[in-house]
Formats: sequence, structure tokens, C-alpha cells
Amino acid sequence: MDYYALPVAKLIEELSKLPGIGRKTAQRLAFYILEMDPLEVEKLAASIKEAKEKIHYCKICCNLTDDDICNICKDEKRDRSVICVLEGPKDVVAMEKTREYKGLYHVLHGVISPMENIGPNEIKIKELLNRLQDGVVKEVILATNPTVEGEATALYISKILKPLGIKITRIAHGIPVGGDLEYFDEVTLSKAIENRREM
Amino acid sequence: MDYYALPVAKLIEELSKLPGIGRKTAQRLAFYILEMDPLEVEKLAASIKEAKEKIHYCKICCNLTDDDICNICKDEKRDRSVICVLEGPKDVVAMEKTREYKGLYHVLHGVISPMENIGPNEIKIKELLNRLQDGVVKEVILATNPTVEGEATALYISKILKPLGIKITRIAHGIPVGGDLEYFDEVTLSKAIENRREM
Repeated sequence: MDYYALPVAKLIEELSKLPGIGRKTAQRLAFYILEMDPLEVEKLAASIKEAKEKIHYCKICCNLTDDDICNICKDEKRDRSVICVLEGPKDVVAMEKTREYKGLYHVLHGVISPMENIGPNEIKIKELLNRLQDGVVKEVILATNPTVEGEATALYISKILKPLGIKITRIAHGIPVGGDLEYFDEVTLSKAIENRREM
Repeated sequence: MDYYALPVAKLIEELSKLPGIGRKTAQRLAFYILEMDPLEVEKLAASIKEAKEKIHYCKICCNLTDDDICNICKDEKRDRSVICVLEGPKDVVAMEKTREYKGLYHVLHGVISPMENIGPNEIKIKELLNRLQDGVVKEVILATNPTVEGEATALYISKILKPLGIKITRIAHGIPVGGDLEYFDEVTLSKAIENRREM
């Protein structure tokens, strides 16, 4: 670290805390930033601060928003009888890009993971339950990732929702479109066969 | 871009301007930043602004420093009779890591490149010439990268320095042609200095 002036060393350190950014990449980014137009650097720093300051969770679905309620929850054209439960805000973006789904969302901000000390109370399950009390919602689609934790979380939620008499579904697991059979693991293939549909 | 709240969209846009950061990576970084501790985000933004504000070129060697004169130029133990000419500040870090070289540096901040409209006046050659007028410097090591532009820049500098009667050397081609100085190990770089040739 002696090789850098203190402000450069600090910048490299902060950048290397970001995911997927090692020391070499952090150094490259730092030197790039130092050669950038000062106005552009100002914009970059401001966008980081501003996003963090203005963005919080939607009061209804816990998705990220700069308003009290997010644009999807506000949209009167969305089907209020279906809620799709997702692990994170990234998944909302992925779902929206399909342009297929017209219901609402609920963002859990994590999955139940005893290994990492994340229990049901650490993610937004209570908030989901609160949304189901007025009888408007007829179906909850559990779209957590098909990982061990994602499956366990889906199972947990399905169990606590059962008494409410709401239809609970899980997204289909199988071979992705364009995928090649030989490259998928046994569990995925088994699921794909198990969930086969008549043509 | 409709999928993101405005401050998130802006953050993704600014991040994706950085080198090697595509939209997908920018999105991942943005969501990571939004989940970070607010104090850490503040530190990240501040380190970017601070580095840009405080760092400028050393008045002697044009390396990056937060002072008038950089630590290397200030260091009385360094051999003032040798100057190693480099393309960028990253190369100074790479050279210093060898712990072999004890002279001073001169950072050009680029190479002559007619394709990109960069002539001798766009890089710090005039500043190098000024340093050679008092007769203290006995050798100039040209350590630009072994690329077409790096070689051309070395040749150009060697020609304009010839009349001054100073020994001019080029780092040895221990580094493969087309390589980039900052990515080579200390031993290779040390060898390259050891085997420098007179031009």
C-alpha cells in the first residue's frame, strides 16, 4: 500500500469491498476514476449517495422504490389477486422483463438459512402475511430460487399460508429454454420429467 | 430502464461507464450498494470524491500525489542520476513492487498515437526535457510498453534526447511484445531492467 498516495489507497480499498472486484480490478478502476472528467466523477459519487439516500422498501411489497409505494403496487392495471413472492429486487427486474406476469410482487429480501443465522423473522414474511388478510389475494406464486434455501423458504411459507385457504403455487422447475439436456444435473432432470405436460 | 426507480437507474448508468463494467455487473453492484451499510456507502462515495479532489500530478515526475511533490521524488535515498520513463501511474506501482529500481521516474500519461490524435505535446515529454537541463541525470531508461505505440514513443524520446549527451536505454524485451507492464511478475520486470540496452 506504500506505492499509492493515501487517497488512492483508500479508494482502492473501498472499491475492492464490492462483490467481484478484486484488488487488481479495484486498482484499474481507481486509476481510471483519477483520469476521468471531474464532473463525471462528481456524478458517479452523487449517484451512489443519492441512490442510497432515496431508495427504500415499498410499504406494500418491499421492492425498492424512491416513493412510499412502488410503481408496480401503484399501477391500477396490475392484477391485485395474485402475488409473486421473490427473494430480491433483482428478481423483480428479471420477472418484469418477461412482460408475461401482470400481478403484484412481494420481495422477501433473503431466504431462510440456518447456516447464516437467517430465520423467518429476518426476511419479509410477516409483511406478506399482512397483505393476505383482506381476502383480495387469491393466489400466491412462490418464485424463490430452486436452491436448498429457496426450496426450504417456499416450503415454510406454503405451510404458514395453508390455513388462509389461498391457492399456493410454485414456479416450474425444468430445463431452461435453449438448454442442453446433457449439461443439467440429475435433480433438474428428475424435476423436468416429474413435471412433464401433455402435448 | 422502466424496471428501476430513477435513482437506481442513474446509479446503474454511472457504474456502467466504468471500464470492464457492463450493464449486468453494474446492476449487480447497484443492488449490492443499496443493501450495504449506509456508513460504508458514505465512505465509498467520499473516497471517490476525495481521491479525485486531492490527487494531482507531481510537479517533478508527473506521478500521482496528494502533495506538491510525490514521495519518490522527495525521497533523498533515491538515485537522482537515473530517470525511468513510464506510460502511466500504474506502471510506477508495478516497477516499485520489484524493489529493484532505486532511481526516479517520469510518467508520460500516455503514448504518442497518431490514430488517437495524441502527439508529443499531449503527453509529458516537455516536462521530461526540463528535468534534464541541469546535468544531474546521467541515464534515462525508456520503459514504455513493448507495443507499437510504446516503441514509437521510446524512439521519439530517444531521438530528441540524443543531443543532450545523456545515456538512453530501453528496458529489455524480457516482456513479450504486445504485453502490458502492469500484469507482469516482479522477476520478469527485474530482468527487464537488468538487461536494458543502450539506444
